[in-house]
Amino acid sequence: AEGGKWLERMRSTFEEPTSSLAAQILATVSILFVIVSMVVLCASTLPEWRAPENRSVEEQSRYTAESVREPSGIIEAICIGWFTAECIVRFIVSKNKCEFVRRPLNIIDLLAITPYYISVLMTVFTGENSQLQRAGVTLRVLRMMRIFWVIKLARHFIGLQTLGLTLKRCYREMVMLLVFICVAMAIFSALSQLLENGLDLGTKNNNGDMCPITVPGRILGGICVVSGIVLLALPITFIYHSFVQCYHELKFRSARYGRSLSAEFLN
Amino acid sequence: AEGGKWLERMRSTFEEPTSSLAAQILATVSILFVIVSMVVLCASTLPEWRAPENRSVEEQSRYTAESVREPSGIIEAICIGWFTAECIVRFIVSKNKCEFVRRPLNIIDLLAITPYYISVLMTVFTGENSQLQRAGVTLRVLRMMRIFWVIKLARHFIGLQTLGLTLKRCYREMVMLLVFICVAMAIFSALSQLLENGLDLGTKNNNGDMCPITVPGRILGGICVVSGIVLLALPITFIYHSFVQCYHELKFRSARYGRSLSAEFLN
Amino acid sequence: AEGGKWLERMRSTFEEPTSSLAAQILATVSILFVIVSMVVLCASTLPEWRAPENRSVEEQSRYTAESVREPSGIIEAICIGWFTAECIVRFIVSKNKCEFVRRPLNIIDLLAITPYYISVLMTVFTGENSQLQRAGVTLRVLRMMRIFWVIKLARHFIGLQTLGLTLKRCYREMVMLLVFICVAMAIFSALSQLLENGLDLGTKNNNGDMCPITVPGRILGGICVVSGIVLLALPITFIYHSFVQCYHELKFRSARYGRSLSAEFLN
Amino acid sequence: AEGGKWLERMRSTFEEPTSSLAAQILATVSILFVIVSMVVLCASTLPEWRAPENRSVEEQSRYTAESVREPSGIIEAICIGWFTAECIVRFIVSKNKCEFVRRPLNIIDLLAITPYYISVLMTVFTGENSQLQRAGVTLRVLRMMRIFWVIKLARHFIGLQTLGLTLKRCYREMVMLLVFICVAMAIFSALSQLLENGLDLGTKNNNGDMCPITVPGRILGGICVVSGIVLLALPITFIYHSFVQCYHELKFRSARYGRSLSAEFLN
Repeated sequence: AEGGKWLERMRSTFEEPTSSLAAQILATVSILFVIVSMVVLCASTLPEWRAPENRSVEEQSRYTAESVREPSGIIEAICIGWFTAECIVRFIVSKNKCEFVRRPLNIIDLLAITPYYISVLMTVFTGENSQLQRAGVTLRVLRMMRIFWVIKLARHFIGLQTLGLTLKRCYREMVMLLVFICVAMAIFSALSQLLENGLDLGTKNNNGDMCPITVPGRILGGICVVSGIVLLALPITFIYHSFVQCYHELKFRSARYGRSLSAEFLN
Repeated sequence: AEGGKWLERMRSTFEEPTSSLAAQILATVSILFVIVSMVVLCASTLPEWRAPENRSVEEQSRYTAESVREPSGIIEAICIGWFTAECIVRFIVSKNKCEFVRRPLNIIDLLAITPYYISVLMTVFTGENSQLQRAGVTLRVLRMMRIFWVIKLARHFIGLQTLGLTLKRCYREMVMLLVFICVAMAIFSALSQLLENGLDLGTKNNNGDMCPITVPGRILGGICVVSGIVLLALPITFIYHSFVQCYHELKFRSARYGRSLSAEFLN
Repeated sequence: AEGGKWLERMRSTFEEPTSSLAAQILATVSILFVIVSMVVLCASTLPEWRAPENRSVEEQSRYTAESVREPSGIIEAICIGWFTAECIVRFIVSKNKCEFVRRPLNIIDLLAITPYYISVLMTVFTGENSQLQRAGVTLRVLRMMRIFWVIKLARHFIGLQTLGLTLKRCYREMVMLLVFICVAMAIFSALSQLLENGLDLGTKNNNGDMCPITVPGRILGGICVVSGIVLLALPITFIYHSFVQCYHELKFRSARYGRSLSAEFLN
Repeated sequence: AEGGKWLERMRSTFEEPTSSLAAQILATVSILFVIVSMVVLCASTLPEWRAPENRSVEEQSRYTAESVREPSGIIEAICIGWFTAECIVRFIVSKNKCEFVRRPLNIIDLLAITPYYISVLMTVFTGENSQLQRAGVTLRVLRMMRIFWVIKLARHFIGLQTLGLTLKRCYREMVMLLVFICVAMAIFSALSQLLENGLDLGTKNNNGDMCPITVPGRILGGICVVSGIVLLALPITFIYHSFVQCYHELKFRSARYGRSLSAEFLN
């Protein structure tokens, strides 16, 4: 019974950030780890950070492989260690293991952690001079997947949970928004193609930033802007109504859950 | 009675995408054909696709005429074949021919298919070297009208039907939006013309992208932005309210229609 | 009694566009005159229209003075003639002259017509070679005031009347919107000035289009965008609610007025 | 009793702008002083105003120190004098000194006035030739803090008070908005980094204005725009609802307070 009580206390510490002081500290540390890892990730893409830019391809790939031993790599390793530990402890103290692995927030945790270990394994097994170019790209994709650690914040912010629930419930309206945008894009791009380039297929706009230059093309551009505003506004309000409802549901559920938990502890 | 039952079953297969598995497959194939034809149409305007860009005018026109025999032309021909077949079968199995030809979705089908046949006929009759330049432009306009195949999606997406119904009902509010935009455009363009060019008619801004350079012109620009937001927001909300109502009406109607249909089939 | 009845019929023809066929034709012609004059006004600012661009200043001023005898000047003269006639007949057939001159739509009519006559008088009195430069600017301002003819459309579109009534009633909220924008502009412009130019006052951005280049300046720019969206959204919704109410009031009033008018005519 | 009545009258003159003619004049003068000081502040950042641009660093710092004796410095001194006097009188006539110093509007007053005196003291004590460079930057920051005088307008505009109250109450929703923006920024910036620069880390976009150039990068850009609109729209409407409620509360409170005040004066 003592162990069960301890497990229960441990579980509430991990799953209910507002249940005790320890839980609040744990949640704060978790959030800090996510923020620190995000700042390091963003900073590592700045050109000033990647100082030795003009190395050869081989050196760059080695550089990617070596990055685990650099300051940003160490911070990254500490973060992943914390996340893994948190995930394992949470799994151990959970009541129902089967229900645990099916909860979306835990699946997100797993998806966020796994790519790091795969990239480490890849670096170890491919060595440092075989298939450098290919492994480099895959590694870079895997390392960029660390950005999904940010979704781990959903555990601590009710707003993000509401957003997730809204997206799940508003599946139909999201598709409607997508269909509207695609249909409008198809029609307006074809019409602008016809009005701008219709009479002379040979000439082409070479610069990256394109703008209409003929009078009919400009009128079409104006219609496109107004249509875009109207078309986007219509399905978004459906999504908004669902969002408000989800928010109140989640707030009510969290308030009730918190109360039942404290009631459980008092007895 | 057997034939009538078969016709009834056929009709529901075509008109009610949710009535049976065959109907769902048919709807999916139809949507796929629209998407494929759209992708081909968009891809055919990319400069990489139109590889032999630097041909002479005569060659280009021949190229337009020959495009039926190229890969994109073949995909196009298959799509139009499918759409025509679908349209004819739908007409044959319809109960009331007179009511059939007056339904807006069928009119859209006809308007979407016809230009293709006209363009084929034009290519055949004008030959390959008479009135090349003129026929080329007309042909290009007709070919671009394939973009309206995308409206055929309205048959399968309740969102697009809602949009159509909303536009029909909100005729007054759309006019209001148009009047607001036109009046505001007239006033602001005249004022900016006066403030920017008022004192020196001789100078003119030659580059395509125009921006206010005088202080009064910039203040007017700021007022114009805020006015634009306010003016657009006002009628759009009317349209939105109508959209919500139309959406619920169409959802209710489709749910009731589906139920009555299945009831019909059970007995 | 016959004359009174004729006056009554005349009045309703002018004041109630939906009361009879003659009234509808009159309203349509009025709208067409406004649109034609607007199109001519906008077209006259196009560089292609002002063909002899490289004349001397004296010639340009003469050109301005002579513009009454050119095609656009003739169209303008016909429009102003129609508007004046309409205004006078409306004044003659009105029941209560005193109440007539105080109605906002009639004041707008007067303000829209007067500048034209002043500009004609100025051209006549100043002659063609005295104070050319100064008179040219004043004339151009007066001629641009023709843009306010577009507000005459308010008589025929309930949307524009609603907008006017909303602006009159939402005086407080418009001031609130203005105060928000001014305060936000003051704070953000001062902060951006400090963050972008704070440490080196000597350097200045010379090109017209300005964008933040320092990291704190870019963060401030992002905050400014989000704040702008939030600040604009808040008072606009007050205005919107007033707009909806005004619209329903005006629609109800026009429907009741129309009914009472037809009832009057039947008896 | 006479003195107490005078104090009471004085207090209402300062705290209730609508209570008497004197109070209205006082409020108007206060608003005018704020506007004048803002216009001078903004004008002083214009390049035309800072005419002797090409002085040496020492001269510039002297110039900053001397600015108190220039026209803009004199206007500034008059404004600060008025604000200080207003603040002191308001403190003297207040009933409850303790409650007075805790009211947010009075704290804002203090925060808006203090920096000016600190900057004057700094100029006096640091003299004109010691630590010029460092003092210059600090002085400039302090002088820019005059921009917060604009928040003194909150005393006179119910809209700004509503905004402040809304921000205080919508703490949770503001955090939600911030979390949404940060998470979306992190995900989209990492993805765009991967899609645009993923395969060639060596190349970098050198010009300040960045735009996607690869096809996947452009598609991501489009998704980013739509997501941004949806994400911003969701929490803003919560804020809006709170704003409407705050506005009605403040209007009701001010109306009731005004009535009770006049009742007090009548008896």
